[in-house]
Amino acid sequence: MTHTRRSFLQYSALFGASALASPLAGLAIPPGDKKLGIALVGLGGYATNQLAPALLQTRNIELRGIVTGTPSKIPVWVEKYKIPEKNIYNYETFDRIADNKDIDVVYIVLPNSMHAEFTIRGAKAGKHVICEKPMAVSVKEGQAMIDACKQAGKQLAIGYRLHYDPFHLEMMRLTREKVFGAVKIVEASDGFRAGDPAQWRLKHALSGGGPLMDVGIYAIQGARYTVGEEPLAVTAQEFPKTMPEKFVDVEESLSWQLYFPSGAIASSFSTYAAGVNRLYAAAEKGWYEVNNAFGYGGQVGRTSKGPMEIKHINQQAAHMDGVAMSIINNTPNIVPGEEGLRDMKVIEAIYASIKAGGKKIQIG
Amino acid sequence: MTHTRRSFLQYSALFGASALASPLAGLAIPPGDKKLGIALVGLGGYATNQLAPALLQTRNIELRGIVTGTPSKIPVWVEKYKIPEKNIYNYETFDRIADNKDIDVVYIVLPNSMHAEFTIRGAKAGKHVICEKPMAVSVKEGQAMIDACKQAGKQLAIGYRLHYDPFHLEMMRLTREKVFGAVKIVEASDGFRAGDPAQWRLKHALSGGGPLMDVGIYAIQGARYTVGEEPLAVTAQEFPKTMPEKFVDVEESLSWQLYFPSGAIASSFSTYAAGVNRLYAAAEKGWYEVNNAFGYGGQVGRTSKGPMEIKHINQQAAHMDGVAMSIINNTPNIVPGEEGLRDMKVIEAIYASIKAGGKKIQIG
Repeated sequence: MTHTRRSFLQYSALFGASALASPLAGLAIPPGDKKLGIALVGLGGYATNQLAPALLQTRNIELRGIVTGTPSKIPVWVEKYKIPEKNIYNYETFDRIADNKDIDVVYIVLPNSMHAEFTIRGAKAGKHVICEKPMAVSVKEGQAMIDACKQAGKQLAIGYRLHYDPFHLEMMRLTREKVFGAVKIVEASDGFRAGDPAQWRLKHALSGGGPLMDVGIYAIQGARYTVGEEPLAVTAQEFPKTMPEKFVDVEESLSWQLYFPSGAIASSFSTYAAGVNRLYAAAEKGWYEVNNAFGYGGQVGRTSKGPMEIKHINQQAAHMDGVAMSIINNTPNIVPGEEGLRDMKVIEAIYASIKAGGKKIQIG
Repeated sequence: MTHTRRSFLQYSALFGASALASPLAGLAIPPGDKKLGIALVGLGGYATNQLAPALLQTRNIELRGIVTGTPSKIPVWVEKYKIPEKNIYNYETFDRIADNKDIDVVYIVLPNSMHAEFTIRGAKAGKHVICEKPMAVSVKEGQAMIDACKQAGKQLAIGYRLHYDPFHLEMMRLTREKVFGAVKIVEASDGFRAGDPAQWRLKHALSGGGPLMDVGIYAIQGARYTVGEEPLAVTAQEFPKTMPEKFVDVEESLSWQLYFPSGAIASSFSTYAAGVNRLYAAAEKGWYEVNNAFGYGGQVGRTSKGPMEIKHINQQAAHMDGVAMSIINNTPNIVPGEEGLRDMKVIEAIYASIKAGGKKIQIG
């Protein structure tokens, strides 16, 4: 058995039934032969608690650099992840990363409104870029990011970890193979009870919007790949704020409905008021769903024929390894800037529908 | 131990934890001491497959009469349920039931547009009335039914079996006792893939509307008692028909959002295109839900702390026994005409919002 074949089978076991249909199945070079170097740009909660630990499990990419505006964070990272002094930057010195051969990829994990600037600066520095979702705070910014990476000849990947999660790959497979017939209805919701009132997510200038930008985007994503089509139009509703002192310039709760070419419909809800978290597909001959769908783990999958027998994986490790393999193989990654841009178009149409009192808005 | 006390404990076991808070807990007379007689008015699928079999399990009410427009159905019912000749009526002779001392209650199980007429005729014949949901096809009709029963001094109960179902009683209890804090969001959906294109449900003249009238009403009910408040306003959307030849004059799919006084929101979906069936509450400190929520059985209840350990019951038997006990005790039943009227007001507001392009409509 070749190394490649064995590695594939390891991934197959990891990814369950979905592996055969997964982007990893066509892997040309065995993981582990070459590791890319990544720098995390922004050392907030997601970088600290998810990405850095995941990078201890990745086989094609490893943590080699950090970019932070908070010097006090540096010693902890240096000690924990053995980051050499020369691979540490702040937001002013960031562009010098162009000269650093250790770093192949930068992962932008800053507040949403900073994504465009740092993605473009990263591309100009000659680095591949992974940018956390939402890719930007507008379609215009998103397009500029795609253009900049294209011009630099570098890959742009969005932080859509769920495209590498076996439960979500299974949802995609059930749709693609029409296991329960054609999908008619998707219900997709994502929301949580927001804590700290001082967090950047609640400041429009940093977040570009409320729960829609932060987690509703997963419901949009989920609806799109579970229906397996691109939505044509949307209607949307914003709800009165129950905590107006907390949600000063972002929405608290909203719902929207997506209209797909086949006539399929997605009904979605997103909120900072309480926990909703589910992706459900109703098809002609049955249903399939993932509860706790959009969490970092703990997915529970079921179909009308029984539970999904799938093992959980480290989503962040799978995501970064997958993107790294695409870079190593020089093949397109499966979560490109264009994928992020489609969601930005839906998000702008949702806000436009709310502004127009719930009128149906075509998605640009 | 008295008979009453023992009977209560039997019900308590039946109803799980909810029994203490259930309307049956206050039962003044022991079940089984006197049985009321009921006549089923309309012998369609629900009367045949659910109500008549359930009446073999009821302890306070029994099947004694039938009213049908289809003479060919009579022999089967006579043989199976030992219905005496004198207790058999058609729609013309129905009013003579006034002289029949065997019959205390009539259960109207006719197409929706016939509910008002037969409820009013039943009340005028001096019978208590149980009327299947939706109580009518308009608020105006519903009010006339309430008035007629009041004038006759007879009880009017709507076929809201889920008010007697232990899973739904548990949802009500979790809300009432704020076990997970105040409810913020409810997601409630009910729909199925409609079969026979010739069925009366698809003819507006008989049904008064599509899935909203037929099953969406359960989502409205569920939202109301799971939030534990009465909604003030609604926004609603109808979706393009994917099977216009089948859904000629009723809607195929629609969604709506209910706005409650506390700021709680319910997001709902109803359809004849595919199966959706869930009642979910997101509260401040956790969530609780019933899947297959609105079915005649097979409810699956869960909370953020674990599964609901509740036994399934025969909903129809519990419903008819419960209404019968209210009649025997001369106390108000828990699913009165007024309860049905509230849903009719919501339904009319939903259709009005759709007609107004999704505008927010106050509920009358």
